[in-house]
Amino acid sequence: MANPELVISSCSSHEEENHCNFNQQKLNFFFMNSCEKFWAQGRKPWKLSIQILKIAVVTIQLVLFGLSNQMVVAFKEENTIAFKHLFLKGYMHQMDDTYAVYTQSDVYDQIVFTVNQYLHLYNVFIGNHAYENKDTEQSTMAICQHFYKRGNICPGNDTFDIDPEIETECFFVEPNEPFHTGTPAENKLNLTLDFHRFLTVELQFKLKAINLQTVHHQKLPNCFDFTLTITFDNKAHSERIKISLDNDISIRECKDWHVSRSIQNTHYMMIFDAFIILTCLVSLIFCIRSVIRGLQLGFISFN
Amino acid sequence: MANPELVISSCSSHEEENHCNFNQQKLNFFFMNSCEKFWAQGRKPWKLSIQILKIAVVTIQLVLFGLSNQMVVAFKEENTIAFKHLFLKGYMHQMDDTYAVYTQSDVYDQIVFTVNQYLHLYNVFIGNHAYENKDTEQSTMAICQHFYKRGNICPGNDTFDIDPEIETECFFVEPNEPFHTGTPAENKLNLTLDFHRFLTVELQFKLKAINLQTVHHQKLPNCFDFTLTITFDNKAHSERIKISLDNDISIRECKDWHVSRSIQNTHYMMIFDAFIILTCLVSLIFCIRSVIRGLQLGFISFN
Amino acid sequence: MANPELVISSCSSHEEENHCNFNQQKLNFFFMNSCEKFWAQGRKPWKLSIQILKIAVVTIQLVLFGLSNQMVVAFKEENTIAFKHLFLKGYMHQMDDTYAVYTQSDVYDQIVFTVNQYLHLYNVFIGNHAYENKDTEQSTMAICQHFYKRGNICPGNDTFDIDPEIETECFFVEPNEPFHTGTPAENKLNLTLDFHRFLTVELQFKLKAINLQTVHHQKLPNCFDFTLTITFDNKAHSERIKISLDNDISIRECKDWHVSRSIQNTHYMMIFDAFIILTCLVSLIFCIRSVIRGLQLGFISFN
Amino acid sequence: MANPELVISSCSSHEEENHCNFNQQKLNFFFMNSCEKFWAQGRKPWKLSIQILKIAVVTIQLVLFGLSNQMVVAFKEENTIAFKHLFLKGYMHQMDDTYAVYTQSDVYDQIVFTVNQYLHLYNVFIGNHAYENKDTEQSTMAICQHFYKRGNICPGNDTFDIDPEIETECFFVEPNEPFHTGTPAENKLNLTLDFHRFLTVELQFKLKAINLQTVHHQKLPNCFDFTLTITFDNKAHSERIKISLDNDISIRECKDWHVSRSIQNTHYMMIFDAFIILTCLVSLIFCIRSVIRGLQLGFISFN
Repeated sequence: MANPELVISSCSSHEEENHCNFNQQKLNFFFMNSCEKFWAQGRKPWKLSIQILKIAVVTIQLVLFGLSNQMVVAFKEENTIAFKHLFLKGYMHQMDDTYAVYTQSDVYDQIVFTVNQYLHLYNVFIGNHAYENKDTEQSTMAICQHFYKRGNICPGNDTFDIDPEIETECFFVEPNEPFHTGTPAENKLNLTLDFHRFLTVELQFKLKAINLQTVHHQKLPNCFDFTLTITFDNKAHSERIKISLDNDISIRECKDWHVSRSIQNTHYMMIFDAFIILTCLVSLIFCIRSVIRGLQLGFISFN
Repeated sequence: MANPELVISSCSSHEEENHCNFNQQKLNFFFMNSCEKFWAQGRKPWKLSIQILKIAVVTIQLVLFGLSNQMVVAFKEENTIAFKHLFLKGYMHQMDDTYAVYTQSDVYDQIVFTVNQYLHLYNVFIGNHAYENKDTEQSTMAICQHFYKRGNICPGNDTFDIDPEIETECFFVEPNEPFHTGTPAENKLNLTLDFHRFLTVELQFKLKAINLQTVHHQKLPNCFDFTLTITFDNKAHSERIKISLDNDISIRECKDWHVSRSIQNTHYMMIFDAFIILTCLVSLIFCIRSVIRGLQLGFISFN
Repeated sequence: MANPELVISSCSSHEEENHCNFNQQKLNFFFMNSCEKFWAQGRKPWKLSIQILKIAVVTIQLVLFGLSNQMVVAFKEENTIAFKHLFLKGYMHQMDDTYAVYTQSDVYDQIVFTVNQYLHLYNVFIGNHAYENKDTEQSTMAICQHFYKRGNICPGNDTFDIDPEIETECFFVEPNEPFHTGTPAENKLNLTLDFHRFLTVELQFKLKAINLQTVHHQKLPNCFDFTLTITFDNKAHSERIKISLDNDISIRECKDWHVSRSIQNTHYMMIFDAFIILTCLVSLIFCIRSVIRGLQLGFISFN
Repeated sequence: MANPELVISSCSSHEEENHCNFNQQKLNFFFMNSCEKFWAQGRKPWKLSIQILKIAVVTIQLVLFGLSNQMVVAFKEENTIAFKHLFLKGYMHQMDDTYAVYTQSDVYDQIVFTVNQYLHLYNVFIGNHAYENKDTEQSTMAICQHFYKRGNICPGNDTFDIDPEIETECFFVEPNEPFHTGTPAENKLNLTLDFHRFLTVELQFKLKAINLQTVHHQKLPNCFDFTLTITFDNKAHSERIKISLDNDISIRECKDWHVSRSIQNTHYMMIFDAFIILTCLVSLIFCIRSVIRGLQLGFISFN
């Protein structure tokens, strides 16, 4: 801050003492801190209070925002763990690095198991998970295999004839009507893998969920879209097909919702948010006023 | 301690030598330690012996008390581990963090398993565990589910209609008569969980046991009440229901007991306890006498 | 490097200034670095550029060679892990140290399991693995047991009669015709182990594979020969037969191959290799020329 | 060692120079080291060689003894691991701390399993293990339960009536004839455990084995007696019965043995042992001679 005494001395060199004294007083007052202003003229420290209040409420808002985010991250992680247990056959805790299949029948079993779990979603799942709406095409599960266009591999004769261009063949599994337990899915799958040629098999499907946990903390639940990709990786052709589950997540506000006995806290939150905006606004106005006054005083003092 | 020489010098300043000498002697003797008293007048150090004895017996009592407590703590921990193996299906060592179920059928299986194990207590359990007496209501197992009052959750449409008020619904399972192996419990349970709405399921029941291990150490066995709470936590609605078993313990003296070929050590213990009380009492009396004498001497010396 | 100024001073001592000056200039120029040559006569630093280029291309070649080797090592390791899962019954991740059998039936089960997996190779295996060609004798699996020539061991009587000479008895299992699922192999095996006498059983067979992974990196696939040896070690006669799987590998170029839509990168690689040879050749020529010139100058200067 | 120069000076003080010189020479020679003796009189250092040889052969003997002992220790450890896998149902690697049963049926299953494995020893076991000879009584398996003499424990009423004296009840299982697979053992066991009263159940039996591994190292095999004790510990009455297997071992020379194509190394070992004894004997004789000579010289010098 500029030193008010410096201003005084510069003023006394102008020898227009009356006018200068008045300016000097104004300047002195301008550069005083809240405490000095209170002792000098009994002015209450409104601006200081506003600043302290602003810091407090913004900190609280930040903490609330962090807690809310933490809940979303935990929801995602819990869901990923659960999907691994639900869609991967025989998956156990902390097996990600070693989860693999080694025989042809295991590959088919694994795929059939995943498809079955997907088809009987409503009978198997505990949480609030559902397929996407049937109107769009995304509601189906896509089973895509990538393989070499042509491949006659005869390791016994040390000969091979291969076309390294990669082709992709997909077919789609429609989920049953909700709560219907039809014939087992095994019969429906006409999937045949040419193990000599195939590189990867990808099972991709979308699930939707609502994070009701936030209702406990009296916030509105969010809607989640999970895009699950189960990849059977045979690129190495080394008898070992590594299986990995990837879970992409996107969060959206739910379209249509109704919460009876309205969540009071949302009102409180809105009031709190409004209060923060108000506080920041008042702080901004004070700041602008201070800048303008400073400029005015500068204009007066040095002219 | 006050220095006896100081007393002497203060006495000589009074110039009543005869009387003073007598008081001086008394004072000198009062402030002597046990060793000096023995050399001066041949007095045996009874009070010192009592003190040393008191410290020894109180230490022994403390060690015995600690060992006895350690046995109780070990009994509780062993029981908690055993209850986890007995009431949680497929529980294995050190699975507490990862013990969870992921499908609807697993939830029902887990509940039915626990109820069955509870009902067939007398056929399954190894130890001396029993239900509480049938006269009171505590002998039943309470299966309580907490759920939202209303909940139409349609994640597929991104819509939900929820009443976040939590309702609780309990029903009670009466244990069979002892040693009766009736029809399996699965049929009796009419429990239906609405997975969209339910938050937690709690299975709560009480078991009683007697810690006979103490008889080996020739102490009277204690009676234990275990309050077991198995919680299925679905608060996150994330496909993963964590299951935890909580074991609250309360220790009481058994009401009615009979030990033939009486445990001699209890008599010894009582004698030992009586001896400690006596020692402490004697020590107290000596202490009070010493304080009174000190006051008397002080009164005589300075008047 | 020799110091040119030293040469100058030695020259001036000959007092044949004209001739010497010319030699001196030549010598000066010979010992100049690329930068000085450029400033002195405007000579472009061709030789320096060649050296830098050589270092760059040789480094790139080394990195490519390392990556290619890494792929081979990874292929071998993945195959060894897969073989352990495929040929050892009940093998699980990181069990190598503790993998053992303890009963007679387990030994037979283990051998029959391995033989079965070998016989049904084409139905079980995922990768491009095959038997060796049937013309040679190597295509069969050799089951060899090593045992004491004679052994009547009666621990009950503390007596034994043993001939410690070790005999070896082998018999061979011919793999089925490809893709044929005949009667189970259990019936075919007439293997009887005399557990009192036998020391080790070795199952040895060869598998061939082609590492197609390299096609992705647009290199030609290699052909691999795996020599697998499964050893049942009963040398200690201690109820515990340790089982180990050893995987020897040999890499060869495949005999007869055809890759449609030719792998362009092999051409690039050949061009790149040719370029490296050229660079090294040019560098060598420059080097030889420099040595010759140095010798000529030395001959001139000191004669 | 005494300093020879000191002896010389003491000699010259006697002034009997001729006689003294002779003694002095003898003494000097007596206290010379091997090297000095060789330079002085050309005496070969036989005694030194004997000492070095003795150290070498004794070291070799010690190493051989250590290796032989190591084989015995390894044999014992391997057998203990194998016995745990063979006699404890469902035992897996490194479960010793957590191996326990929790239900009544598990206790019976475990006991029946162990008895069955014991009865079908010759059909199950891989190694050279056998029962003790049938003439003695040790060949049977003893199943002993220790329990309170009287125990009416009613934890439900908080009452108990107990006689803490411990009674022991044993019954014995005779092993079948070798290689006979009779009716399953489950039916034969009339064991009933009173879980309220019983403290421990101990299954004790002896097995004999011969460590043939030493034949490879061309040493004679030893005979081993294993005394196995499987203890079910219910002392805590805490629903958890810890099971431990204890394996006591005793090594004996086998009574009657015959090894054809005689193990040459045993002869070599005997020759080696004889050589060590000879070396030590020679060393001892030299030592005694040296002591006697020293005493003689001392007698001569100082008289």
